[in-house]
Amino acid sequence: MNEREIVEHLRRVFPKVGDDAAVIGDRVVTNDMLIEDVDFTRAIPLKFIARKSLASNLSDIAAMGATPEWAVVALGLPPWVDVHRLIDDLAGAAAGHGIEIVGGDLSRAEKLVISITAAGRTSRPLLRSGARPGDRLYVSRPLGAAGAGLQLLQNGWTIDANGEVTPPSGVAYAQREFGAAAIRRHVDPEPEVALGIALSAIGEVTSCIDISDGLSTDLHHLCEASQCGAVVERDRIPVFPDLERNGVPLGIDVARVVLHGGEEYALLFTSSLRESELSGRLGRPVYAIGRITDRDVLLDGKPLQPRGWDHFA
Amino acid sequence: MNEREIVEHLRRVFPKVGDDAAVIGDRVVTNDMLIEDVDFTRAIPLKFIARKSLASNLSDIAAMGATPEWAVVALGLPPWVDVHRLIDDLAGAAAGHGIEIVGGDLSRAEKLVISITAAGRTSRPLLRSGARPGDRLYVSRPLGAAGAGLQLLQNGWTIDANGEVTPPSGVAYAQREFGAAAIRRHVDPEPEVALGIALSAIGEVTSCIDISDGLSTDLHHLCEASQCGAVVERDRIPVFPDLERNGVPLGIDVARVVLHGGEEYALLFTSSLRESELSGRLGRPVYAIGRITDRDVLLDGKPLQPRGWDHFA
Repeated sequence: MNEREIVEHLRRVFPKVGDDAAVIGDRVVTNDMLIEDVDFTRAIPLKFIARKSLASNLSDIAAMGATPEWAVVALGLPPWVDVHRLIDDLAGAAAGHGIEIVGGDLSRAEKLVISITAAGRTSRPLLRSGARPGDRLYVSRPLGAAGAGLQLLQNGWTIDANGEVTPPSGVAYAQREFGAAAIRRHVDPEPEVALGIALSAIGEVTSCIDISDGLSTDLHHLCEASQCGAVVERDRIPVFPDLERNGVPLGIDVARVVLHGGEEYALLFTSSLRESELSGRLGRPVYAIGRITDRDVLLDGKPLQPRGWDHFA
Repeated sequence: MNEREIVEHLRRVFPKVGDDAAVIGDRVVTNDMLIEDVDFTRAIPLKFIARKSLASNLSDIAAMGATPEWAVVALGLPPWVDVHRLIDDLAGAAAGHGIEIVGGDLSRAEKLVISITAAGRTSRPLLRSGARPGDRLYVSRPLGAAGAGLQLLQNGWTIDANGEVTPPSGVAYAQREFGAAAIRRHVDPEPEVALGIALSAIGEVTSCIDISDGLSTDLHHLCEASQCGAVVERDRIPVFPDLERNGVPLGIDVARVVLHGGEEYALLFTSSLRESELSGRLGRPVYAIGRITDRDVLLDGKPLQPRGWDHFA
């Protein structure tokens, strides 16, 4: 049983399931559930787990081009969790994104479970299925930090609730700075809410998805939904600053984290507009990394396999 | 840490949390999360777990007087679960209630987690806070079966996926029939969706809650929200057929399951209308069990303590 098989069955049974969020009239609705020891461990301060659980939902709302409105939160609570603090952290994160938590459910649990359903509003939802051959393929920001940060946490780096990062002994200063930035990006990702809203307002933007499972896997999701292919140029993919210079000495496989690292929460989208035109209209840089084609997903002419996150691998 | 304390904190932080569902314009939204070994065990066939997870949400929608519209489903899936079958069971249950599953999330998990968010529409949401002294207090149907069924399952009775109930050896025929009916009510409850919609249309219905935590506890919830009290007459509470005659020999404490048994999913509501008038307008029986007062929750003149389900007891 792998995720693809399950998702295919899901789509047969529930035809509306498929995009980052479901479209219901002028609303979009999404759900993400984080489970202790599957999606995170107790090594991550609770504050960041709370913030990330909301951020992953808001990233889905952003990918649909919608303005976040409300969320409901279901919590499965084991004894180790300080519930009042968790609630306060969720409230703080919601306020920071201008979204209201309107309801929820509480339950005992052996492992912490945070299941959030969030809704937004848009007059033009961005779908995965709108890409057309000839469109340019864009990412919204440099990639690689989330995967690098995760690997460093697995290699003995730690982060406390104030965001202070402690490396293992013997790590050079420049690499400490890089590592701290990557870990913060991993534990406290920023969803591209403003960008999603702006993309929805540009008619020449044809499709969008957020990079939650990794560029390679999410590009396959987009191409499958649009029944198309894509060519990507490796040299055009923007890379998190200093990932080459400081990540490699720390044992980071740059190609792996850039192409396949999950939880980036950057947006991957398509448009007929050129990069300079689109960046100009948005008033911020976005990065053309390739083109949409009729079939096959290629990186520098070779097949790009979906090696990102499989929830059941 | 008990549930009351957590819920009080929740309401301070999130003022909209409080009713069975949150009101957003003319929509209501609710969430219920069921966790293996907390809310159910593997002894219950998966089909019934799926159906009940949707039913508990629809009961919240019913308590708000709303017409169910859509749901999103997050599943935390351990290896023992047949995912395709679970999806099919959820789809069947949704179709049976005329609600569309529009999205969701999948994750690995050690224990099965089913988190459903459901939404409905109503022009007049029924709140917990509308009861006024002098109103009559109603329940929608006889109580006690859900608690009795749970106790029998704990005492060695079993139910298979076809709904066939097997008692331990030596149980008399009449008690088998009773026990099977109670267990089916426990594992496959019917939310009062049609009744909730009808109550919303009757202006003299002033408040409503569903009995998910037990009559005593949910009556306290209603009285706290309405800042009032209630008097209940024990003899007027309708009791599941033959609970006295066949439940007692099986070791069921009738008063306990009627007053404090959870997961009934009957509606508890208030109205200025008399029982005959209200039943007549609804075209079905509902049961006046007492009155709303200024303060205190009393059963036959003595305090009725909230001894139902506490999610953190």
